[in-house]
Amino acid sequence: MAIVVREPLAKGVAFAALFTGEKSPRRFSRWAKVPTLALCAVLVPALAGGADWSEQQLATAGALRDRALSGTSAYEHVTSLVTEVGPRSAGSSGDPAAVRWALNKLANLGFSHVRSQDVLVPRWVRGHAEVALAGPTSQSLVAVALGGSVGTSDEGVEAQVLEVASLDALNALPAATVGGKIVFINQRMERTRDGAGYGAAVRNRTEGPSAAGHLGAAALLIRSVGTSEQRHAHTGSINYRVDAPRIPALSLSNPDADQLARWLKPGKPVRLRVKSTARELPATWSANVIGEIPGTERANEIVLLGAHLDSWDLGQGAIDDGAGVAIVIEAARLIGRLERKPARTVRVVLFANEEFGLSGAREYARLVGDEAARHVIAAEADLGAGAVWRIRSQVAPEAVPAVDAIREALKPLALEAGDNEGRGGPDLGPLRALGVPVLDLAQDATNYFDVHHTVNDTLAQIDSKTLNQVVAAYAVATYMAASKSGDFGRLPAQEQQQR
Amino acid sequence: MAIVVREPLAKGVAFAALFTGEKSPRRFSRWAKVPTLALCAVLVPALAGGADWSEQQLATAGALRDRALSGTSAYEHVTSLVTEVGPRSAGSSGDPAAVRWALNKLANLGFSHVRSQDVLVPRWVRGHAEVALAGPTSQSLVAVALGGSVGTSDEGVEAQVLEVASLDALNALPAATVGGKIVFINQRMERTRDGAGYGAAVRNRTEGPSAAGHLGAAALLIRSVGTSEQRHAHTGSINYRVDAPRIPALSLSNPDADQLARWLKPGKPVRLRVKSTARELPATWSANVIGEIPGTERANEIVLLGAHLDSWDLGQGAIDDGAGVAIVIEAARLIGRLERKPARTVRVVLFANEEFGLSGAREYARLVGDEAARHVIAAEADLGAGAVWRIRSQVAPEAVPAVDAIREALKPLALEAGDNEGRGGPDLGPLRALGVPVLDLAQDATNYFDVHHTVNDTLAQIDSKTLNQVVAAYAVATYMAASKSGDFGRLPAQEQQQR
Repeated sequence: MAIVVREPLAKGVAFAALFTGEKSPRRFSRWAKVPTLALCAVLVPALAGGADWSEQQLATAGALRDRALSGTSAYEHVTSLVTEVGPRSAGSSGDPAAVRWALNKLANLGFSHVRSQDVLVPRWVRGHAEVALAGPTSQSLVAVALGGSVGTSDEGVEAQVLEVASLDALNALPAATVGGKIVFINQRMERTRDGAGYGAAVRNRTEGPSAAGHLGAAALLIRSVGTSEQRHAHTGSINYRVDAPRIPALSLSNPDADQLARWLKPGKPVRLRVKSTARELPATWSANVIGEIPGTERANEIVLLGAHLDSWDLGQGAIDDGAGVAIVIEAARLIGRLERKPARTVRVVLFANEEFGLSGAREYARLVGDEAARHVIAAEADLGAGAVWRIRSQVAPEAVPAVDAIREALKPLALEAGDNEGRGGPDLGPLRALGVPVLDLAQDATNYFDVHHTVNDTLAQIDSKTLNQVVAAYAVATYMAASKSGDFGRLPAQEQQQR
Repeated sequence: MAIVVREPLAKGVAFAALFTGEKSPRRFSRWAKVPTLALCAVLVPALAGGADWSEQQLATAGALRDRALSGTSAYEHVTSLVTEVGPRSAGSSGDPAAVRWALNKLANLGFSHVRSQDVLVPRWVRGHAEVALAGPTSQSLVAVALGGSVGTSDEGVEAQVLEVASLDALNALPAATVGGKIVFINQRMERTRDGAGYGAAVRNRTEGPSAAGHLGAAALLIRSVGTSEQRHAHTGSINYRVDAPRIPALSLSNPDADQLARWLKPGKPVRLRVKSTARELPATWSANVIGEIPGTERANEIVLLGAHLDSWDLGQGAIDDGAGVAIVIEAARLIGRLERKPARTVRVVLFANEEFGLSGAREYARLVGDEAARHVIAAEADLGAGAVWRIRSQVAPEAVPAVDAIREALKPLALEAGDNEGRGGPDLGPLRALGVPVLDLAQDATNYFDVHHTVNDTLAQIDSKTLNQVVAAYAVATYMAASKSGDFGRLPAQEQQQR
């Protein structure tokens, strides 16, 4: 996963009058101004519930759940991807290897209409980074370049460090204070189950480089947007603004950010040397990989299961997003083995280059054309390998009871009910903007940001039994979505958002 | 700590007749053939206990214990060392910085006779290491050169990998099988409280390079001698034999060793590229740093508290052995603040270059001369920052009850009674060989080898409260040893052991 920052509230024309205009944790909040009587008229039959699925279908859902809980091949899939391909950042040698792997894997597992969709991707090369105290002893800090950062000159940058507590604190400083310095944003990410701490801290990474560059800084260092006390620095993409100089941007592992903070504490000037050979190369081609479990009566309607095929270069790409790839492949595969398939087609889309610009997701939405209206609902697995603990959604209000029914079918998993403001995963943004409803099978992210975007993203971080639980949730939700008699409505049309 | 391999049983002349000749977990085992009556004659008064310390002294020990448990400055000391000096491998720029730090720290804390003792140390430079699959995709493995390893040529080594389960399995192979290959010793270290798993696996590191070189291997890779599933490779010194070619030797982090094992599993040839710029530079000078809390009635008798000042280059040297340095400084400092000081002198010795050849320990013993006989007992803190859980010793049999009395004075810590075959820490080997008894305040090593000798050896791994517990144990044991009316006898004289 690259981005979980909350997007600004969508402000499409057709549904604008329905918005409350403020965030609310209550369900239906975005439809709160729908006249009450009209809403009730829609809800009453839906809340009754039984109309959406036959008894046989609900029994099939239960059997699918129990089957998955008792064991799946998901761990084998991610092991295969990590072992045979490994890191696969956009444009790297691992990227086409991952596309080949996915095409072969889907075909070998019996998916239909297995195909790729060419995607032009940017190509950034990390090179080598060094951050060290400019002094008599050779104390160096564990640092990595942030994704998309420019490098330094061969001599590197040597300058005094200016510590700030947050991006907002940086933005409040005058250029005279910042100019020529190495800015250090020392904000610690909070550990939370839903990953909200990431959203709060990740702006340092995405917006920090241009904020510092705009004020004349020589370089930017941020404390890793991660929760681990291990010595692994966290990478991830940055957004350079067009109106600010591009300066080198790197992140320090938490223990190294601690060390730098201790050096700064006495208040005497601290000078660092920063070198980075990061650079951008010409764009190149990657691909989305697609495979399907064909539906029966309504095969032209699509339930989309997404994950992203690329990873950052540092780790093995096991939890981000090898786990997601394995989860959606396995959930769809289990549905494909049912004696009685669901009415709708289950389409697995393994998106290209999520991490460095959502290239595959944008291209998929650009090409989807008339098919957009036939995407009944979509879900993406891109939050690691933790257990599902909550279901959120973003569906039409009358379909919310169907989400409750899915939760009911997963009762042994004791999932919490979330709100109806789910995002469904980063690659689904462009589809949401086209009105496609989404389902969030929220995975426990308590430990995810210990590993996410670091060299430590390896297979050792995945527990196969937990992965089976996630597959169970995805398989049941997907089967029920693909079998449901009615649909999930449409989301308010939005202008396609640039990130 | 560098080495916890069990040494061969000492076989000095004078005490040879007393040895059982085999290992035994029972206390007194090494003296088991002492005539029973003679032993009882010695033991009876000692077991009575009270003769060694006055009531007032025992009360002082208890107060010292409680004082330390309620809070010490040990965490400040290690923070200061890690922040102001950081990594300090023998001959690096951090090494003289550490010596200066220690001289200043001991002087500022009020130690007497603060001085250094010049020590010639070897100098090895890690350089940069790369281990990667020789194939179309750029899969690389996290690896570090082992301490003392030669590097590769600029082109590196590219060869097929030969996996073996252990050093013994390697030694059983014919040269025809091994010749030209990159040997991979894939033995996992067991996690144990007493660190015994390290002793079992570390031979792969110390003896593996020459074992593989002797059979014609092109290079050696070992699975890290460490228990972490994080992606940190473990370094540590190797012993090249004079009768084998010196080949490059590196270790892989556990997740990377797993990855290599998965590549090898199908049985097809796997080729790796290995590059390393490790090299040896001319020897240079470091120093032992010494400071004392002078005794009163018997100030010419010495209780030695040791730790080592050097660290490996990869981490900050927090747990190995910044923690030990802080523990012994603080334990001695607390004794120095007592109203009524103990009879004997407490001498803190911060040894140079433990990690890469015990240079400081050997030099200390070489220079100790007649003073050796006046070293009443010695203890070293070199097993990280875990709590003390057991007391072992190697003292004359008649002094074992005194060790029990020390344990009794530490009753709130609920320490287990260990045997009388303790080693006392790696730097005490040369002193033991001269007959100096040792005390082992065994720290819990369950998690120590997750961090030991890796880049992850940072201050974040130390808990200040636990460190206080260790200081309490050292302070009480040291005070009681320095106050005891009798001594701890002498160990059998040994020939000075290499390593």
